[in-house]
Amino acid sequence: MAMPKGAQAFPRSEYLRRLTAVKGEMERREIEVLVVTVPANITYLSGYTSKSGYVPQGLIVSLKDEEPAFITRRMDAPAAIHQMFVDRSRIFGYPEALIANPDKDGWDAIMDILIESGFENARIAVEASSLQGRTVEKFKTRSSGAPIIDFGNTISWIRGIKSDLEITAMREAAAIADAAMLKAKEVILPGAREADAAAEITATLIRGVNGIVGTDLASLYLCASPRTSTCHIPWAEDVFQLGSQVNLELAGVRHGYTSALMRTFSLGEPSDRLRRLHEGEVAGLEAALAAVKPGATCGDVATAFNTTLQKYGFKKESRCGYAMGINWTEPTASLKMGDPTILRPNMTFHLMLGNWIDEDFGYALSETFRVTETGVETFSSLPRDIFQI
Amino acid sequence: MAMPKGAQAFPRSEYLRRLTAVKGEMERREIEVLVVTVPANITYLSGYTSKSGYVPQGLIVSLKDEEPAFITRRMDAPAAIHQMFVDRSRIFGYPEALIANPDKDGWDAIMDILIESGFENARIAVEASSLQGRTVEKFKTRSSGAPIIDFGNTISWIRGIKSDLEITAMREAAAIADAAMLKAKEVILPGAREADAAAEITATLIRGVNGIVGTDLASLYLCASPRTSTCHIPWAEDVFQLGSQVNLELAGVRHGYTSALMRTFSLGEPSDRLRRLHEGEVAGLEAALAAVKPGATCGDVATAFNTTLQKYGFKKESRCGYAMGINWTEPTASLKMGDPTILRPNMTFHLMLGNWIDEDFGYALSETFRVTETGVETFSSLPRDIFQI
Repeated sequence: MAMPKGAQAFPRSEYLRRLTAVKGEMERREIEVLVVTVPANITYLSGYTSKSGYVPQGLIVSLKDEEPAFITRRMDAPAAIHQMFVDRSRIFGYPEALIANPDKDGWDAIMDILIESGFENARIAVEASSLQGRTVEKFKTRSSGAPIIDFGNTISWIRGIKSDLEITAMREAAAIADAAMLKAKEVILPGAREADAAAEITATLIRGVNGIVGTDLASLYLCASPRTSTCHIPWAEDVFQLGSQVNLELAGVRHGYTSALMRTFSLGEPSDRLRRLHEGEVAGLEAALAAVKPGATCGDVATAFNTTLQKYGFKKESRCGYAMGINWTEPTASLKMGDPTILRPNMTFHLMLGNWIDEDFGYALSETFRVTETGVETFSSLPRDIFQI
Repeated sequence: MAMPKGAQAFPRSEYLRRLTAVKGEMERREIEVLVVTVPANITYLSGYTSKSGYVPQGLIVSLKDEEPAFITRRMDAPAAIHQMFVDRSRIFGYPEALIANPDKDGWDAIMDILIESGFENARIAVEASSLQGRTVEKFKTRSSGAPIIDFGNTISWIRGIKSDLEITAMREAAAIADAAMLKAKEVILPGAREADAAAEITATLIRGVNGIVGTDLASLYLCASPRTSTCHIPWAEDVFQLGSQVNLELAGVRHGYTSALMRTFSLGEPSDRLRRLHEGEVAGLEAALAAVKPGATCGDVATAFNTTLQKYGFKKESRCGYAMGINWTEPTASLKMGDPTILRPNMTFHLMLGNWIDEDFGYALSETFRVTETGVETFSSLPRDIFQI
């Protein structure tokens, strides 16, 4: 019996619009066929979110076909039939003999199909930054024609400007993030284990809010004293203490679209140092948001933040944010001094003001936002407070 | 103030033992300095589990130093000081200017330190399969001396045989997996949302069992009708129905060490087809476990499973397991026909009998096991049943 199509996250017209943008760039660069391998880009162009990208797979976009084709491990083909908007005839499963096989692998299967489809001498592009050097070499060796072209981050840049449908998914993800942050206010308590709090927060990220579930989990970082200067430890085996501080970074996810949120918790009165930093960070956040409008640059936003924070006697070394969408960070625009990217309506960013100042002191605050026609919309509805427990 | 050392997962002697094995292999291949970049290998040699590997970082093992050095993004250095067994003087943070910078990145920082440490003309090895082609090129360009050597999967092979301390961590992870699977039996109910069940199961994986918490989350796959032929979709937005089947794959995690478990649930009476397949799979599982002993090969175990399953009229296309340890799969030995890897005491495997037979039918069953001096120890204490709800 055949696998049915699942509920689709977006209508077919939305995927065709995205493909048209990619094909336009292919035409401009005289590329006949493109092998998409960055998982977020595969999601973007097809709706596929299944986690099969740890073995070779490629979405094939060709100028002569309206729909892309997908070549994946055979056991993952049913998930592609279920999730992708494309016709089932466009999905190809390669055999299990190509897994853990040093002589011939899934990349060979992809080249086999490209050659069978008449692309042997075509101008082929790949996303080289997502591939091992030896895989790019394999594409070169097996293509007897033109050189292999690196498509770079082109699709990530196209993803940068969202449609209203994508913005809806981002707003849903943000509402889930808010619910999880509010749950954190209930479960971060002196005497509670960090893991128990993390369990409740994570469960909320999956259950979602208002009947809209989280479709996946993104990273969660709960960094409590004495670890407030760390930023990428999920949680520890400790128990919260009165006087402790907790920096929490989390995100809601809808169909891959991710909306992040950071807040700082204080178990008891915040220290004077924390209070002063918070004051400067909130002022910087407001200055940054005030600088967001179409035509301004990412650098302008960062300058507004940094200049304001400095007035309060603090500095943040790391960039103050990045483009955000499918699977968290988009590897394109940064909110950092000098970044020339011009803001356009429906670009979305994580204004990430986490500040790991000293070995014993760090702080978390962020907003995920959209550039509007005239300014900015932040997705979270939570106050920009230190959450005192 | 300085970041304190956190509670260490293993004693210093355990890390030195592991390093001695790696250095032995370096000596054999006349390698003076090794840049370790596979995250599981960094965990293995240092205790570091923080999730900073999405930007350049490297653990430097040199023959002349007892302890390795770690070069990472500056904001991640405090986590390394906290988690790694090495002295804080061995941890180097590179500046934020190297992030999202096309001209100079963290790999340059690593080469800078190697050159300053006198390794410019040394025989340097890297783990090439974890690096982009252009990163390997950068190492070559910046090293004026001997060629860059690929250390391949050498450390993963060394990881294959666990110490008793590591086995303890695997057993703890397995107990957490068992608790989560038992939670699934409570929350997978007709009318319940898949996401609500996934939330409860995930929360159990974090809370742990018997006072021992999960230190991280691994992948969770809850594939319910009509998606039982898929294997890598976390969960869907549907509600469980009477008559549905659910294939569940999950894992507990302790200090990176991961123990996986798969079981199949039936909401109501299992179909005849499911019952027959289950009978064959359980018989195959028992035959496979009976074949496990020091001196036998991975291929022998797979042959025992496949031969038995065929007697029941079924076939499994994919390999029936793989070496397991830090961060799930070890990219080394496979439980598949012909794999010549010889089993030795304290090797650990996921005997993964998930079988995605047809577009509308798949099945899940697995055991994570250890090779003992005389045979096998399975880590889970759950029955090998179809869990009927």
